[in-house]
Amino acid sequence: MIRPSDRSVPDADSDYFDTHWPRFLEEWKDLLRIPSISADPAFRGECRQCAQWLADHLAALGFESRLLTTASHPVVLARRAGDAALPAILFYGHYDVQPPDPLNEWETPPFEPELRDGRLYARGAQDNKGQVFAFIKALEALRRQQVPLPPLTLLLEGDEEDGSSALADCLETWRDDLAARVLLVSDTETAASGRPAIVMGLRGIVTLTVTVSGPHHDLHSGLHGGVAPNPAVGLARLIATLHDAEGRIAVSGFTDDVRIPDAEELRQAQAAQDINPAAYREQTGVDPVAGEPDVALFARLAFRPCIDVNGITSGYAGDGIKTIIPARATAKLSARLAAGQDPALALRRLSGHLRQHAPRGLTLTITDACVGGPALWVDWRSPVVTTARTVLHDLFGVEPAFLREGASIPVLSRLAQVSGAEPVLVGFGSSADRIHAPNESYRVAAFRDGFRFAARLLRELGRR
Amino acid sequence: MIRPSDRSVPDADSDYFDTHWPRFLEEWKDLLRIPSISADPAFRGECRQCAQWLADHLAALGFESRLLTTASHPVVLARRAGDAALPAILFYGHYDVQPPDPLNEWETPPFEPELRDGRLYARGAQDNKGQVFAFIKALEALRRQQVPLPPLTLLLEGDEEDGSSALADCLETWRDDLAARVLLVSDTETAASGRPAIVMGLRGIVTLTVTVSGPHHDLHSGLHGGVAPNPAVGLARLIATLHDAEGRIAVSGFTDDVRIPDAEELRQAQAAQDINPAAYREQTGVDPVAGEPDVALFARLAFRPCIDVNGITSGYAGDGIKTIIPARATAKLSARLAAGQDPALALRRLSGHLRQHAPRGLTLTITDACVGGPALWVDWRSPVVTTARTVLHDLFGVEPAFLREGASIPVLSRLAQVSGAEPVLVGFGSSADRIHAPNESYRVAAFRDGFRFAARLLRELGRR
Repeated sequence: MIRPSDRSVPDADSDYFDTHWPRFLEEWKDLLRIPSISADPAFRGECRQCAQWLADHLAALGFESRLLTTASHPVVLARRAGDAALPAILFYGHYDVQPPDPLNEWETPPFEPELRDGRLYARGAQDNKGQVFAFIKALEALRRQQVPLPPLTLLLEGDEEDGSSALADCLETWRDDLAARVLLVSDTETAASGRPAIVMGLRGIVTLTVTVSGPHHDLHSGLHGGVAPNPAVGLARLIATLHDAEGRIAVSGFTDDVRIPDAEELRQAQAAQDINPAAYREQTGVDPVAGEPDVALFARLAFRPCIDVNGITSGYAGDGIKTIIPARATAKLSARLAAGQDPALALRRLSGHLRQHAPRGLTLTITDACVGGPALWVDWRSPVVTTARTVLHDLFGVEPAFLREGASIPVLSRLAQVSGAEPVLVGFGSSADRIHAPNESYRVAAFRDGFRFAARLLRELGRR
Repeated sequence: MIRPSDRSVPDADSDYFDTHWPRFLEEWKDLLRIPSISADPAFRGECRQCAQWLADHLAALGFESRLLTTASHPVVLARRAGDAALPAILFYGHYDVQPPDPLNEWETPPFEPELRDGRLYARGAQDNKGQVFAFIKALEALRRQQVPLPPLTLLLEGDEEDGSSALADCLETWRDDLAARVLLVSDTETAASGRPAIVMGLRGIVTLTVTVSGPHHDLHSGLHGGVAPNPAVGLARLIATLHDAEGRIAVSGFTDDVRIPDAEELRQAQAAQDINPAAYREQTGVDPVAGEPDVALFARLAFRPCIDVNGITSGYAGDGIKTIIPARATAKLSARLAAGQDPALALRRLSGHLRQHAPRGLTLTITDACVGGPALWVDWRSPVVTTARTVLHDLFGVEPAFLREGASIPVLSRLAQVSGAEPVLVGFGSSADRIHAPNESYRVAAFRDGFRFAARLLRELGRR
């Protein structure tokens, strides 16, 4: 599959981009105006609207496209036959976005895209609508230029930010539609230095909500304080059992099955993503002091699991004082899993730990327990990885980084398995894009890089 | 001051009540319709409106009444000269109410009073508008019956539910207006059995808000989990340091100065309020398992301090999942103080503990630190306590309970000190009134008892 690249080709793609960019921008904004927030049931209609927008757009590019029904939001499936002698390609992306709150921290409204200082600001500008749309525009460019293409299937789901379980449940049923040789994904970042990167691993994820319930109703903290067990205190004490004093996960057995990287994998990951504490502080506002003290910083993200609290709600949150013992306290938890960990087992271990440490006199309930998916582990010797590496080198003049990301695309390991395809993950995001946070944005230059990479890779994969 | 009671008198008061009850009810409802939520700045106008309503009502009863300005909501001060040879009486109450949330748990709206099954339902129905209004209606009855009264001052504040600091700051300035021999308060409950009670003690209170801040903005929990310190986890671990594994306060020195009751005080408190665990569970929904395991349940409320979390807010609280490391986490804390504890010192010890245990890599800030007030300790040998005891015995045919309450009326110790008056605290609330919680209510029969007690006590104190 690897061939010497044709230096004359990228110019045609860049020219196409620069000619059509004003239209691309308007279309991209149209896509971002649809608030496809998968986690909030109030936006069910908007999720469907977004899926239909993409299906229509792909149909106009000559794809046979349709919406597939799931237990949650619809999946866009778009196919084009192409040259059957070439390796079939499956492109995976998602059109759903994270909730935009806290809304008051956005400089411009999350669903009114605005171009400022070379960046387009909107929820989903990068994750994942921006990166998906750059790929779609590359398809447009190649089609209009009559470039021969391999058989192509796009699978765009609407539940990635909510755990992808609706898609995961359907994969077996759709197995025949998904068969492919190469699984392309563009939902990742470049290396911190800005160097293009191939993502060689992602962490898995499981999530749950734990609620500690006490009195029938909020109690007066004077009449009952020192006698009635306090759910907010109980939940805090429960959360405090999840890690030891130094930051290691204290859930029994949780890290037992974690795959240990070999020397070359360690070397690649360190070269790609070593964390400089001062730069980290500059970027995030905090020192990188969490996690296992005896594991190098880069390796904590690349090869180790973690457990985080994503939110806590209990009692009075308004102005001033309300002296109550709250009736209940709730925490949302997520665990990122390393390669080797079975998600169902990890979830059982975490739930079991919480139940075992349930605070005295209070009732513990676990809801929304979700087996997101296992970690993804890509072999750096895979031929399609080598092709992507060559394309990146040719386009950007540097050797790409071999990243192992701390983030998750929960359904990806399963999709690789069901499709039989070798995954290639190349994205052009950066931490400055603030995905999942207020003021998400995507650099226009990164959008253009994604477009050029997709176009060139498809040209390479489309050569007989 | 103690005299044999006149058995013929209560009938006149009861008759007055029963004749005028339909009008009392309409007036009481008018008072409850005013949402005088002191803690929420949005209700500033309503607090003033409520104060003015009371001032007008008292003026119509022949009191010289006015609104005094404070740094927060106005104070109603109403005076009537009376017989200068009799002991001057200062009545203290508050017209402000707790915030009504969670609103969706109310069966009828909190500021639309509704009479059901012998109870009036509304925020403030009992605490403290209902109890204050029963006293005012007793004044009306005695005035209309031309009963001779001692000099009387009513002090009704609008910041009790928000810590009373605005009133506390003014007490010294108003010292001359507040001088009295007896300080009457009706903001407490009967004994759990329903037996009338004189409250011999209240706990003090201090409150604060603690915020643990981390990253500039919410971080993606995959890209940063296991490296970036998590404020929600840090706050939980911090809260977990406040108590030891068995429930004792773990703040160094916090309980050092707590006054140890003598045998008679212990006997009275136990007789008044021994806690039956099964009944407690029935009433609240929880077993009384918090607090110091080596202290009897009744004594934990009567004689010991406690620290509670009133609310926690951090990160994502909506439906579904949002996999973030929150930028910050906030908890509202209150501590109830036992007699002997200096509130300013207790607040310093609590703040110092929080700072000393600040989670690594995160920034801790303490705001809204409020020295509510010290505990109140009434001597059971005081003559006015003996008068109240006789009146209660005569009216209800039983020996009253000598309660030491876990709750606080923060400003009361200071008011007793500034006024030079002996406190007498008799109230007719019960835990079934659900003060501070959704569906607060007050039994009409309890309102009538409060009216009869006030009328009879004023008759006794008005005898030459």
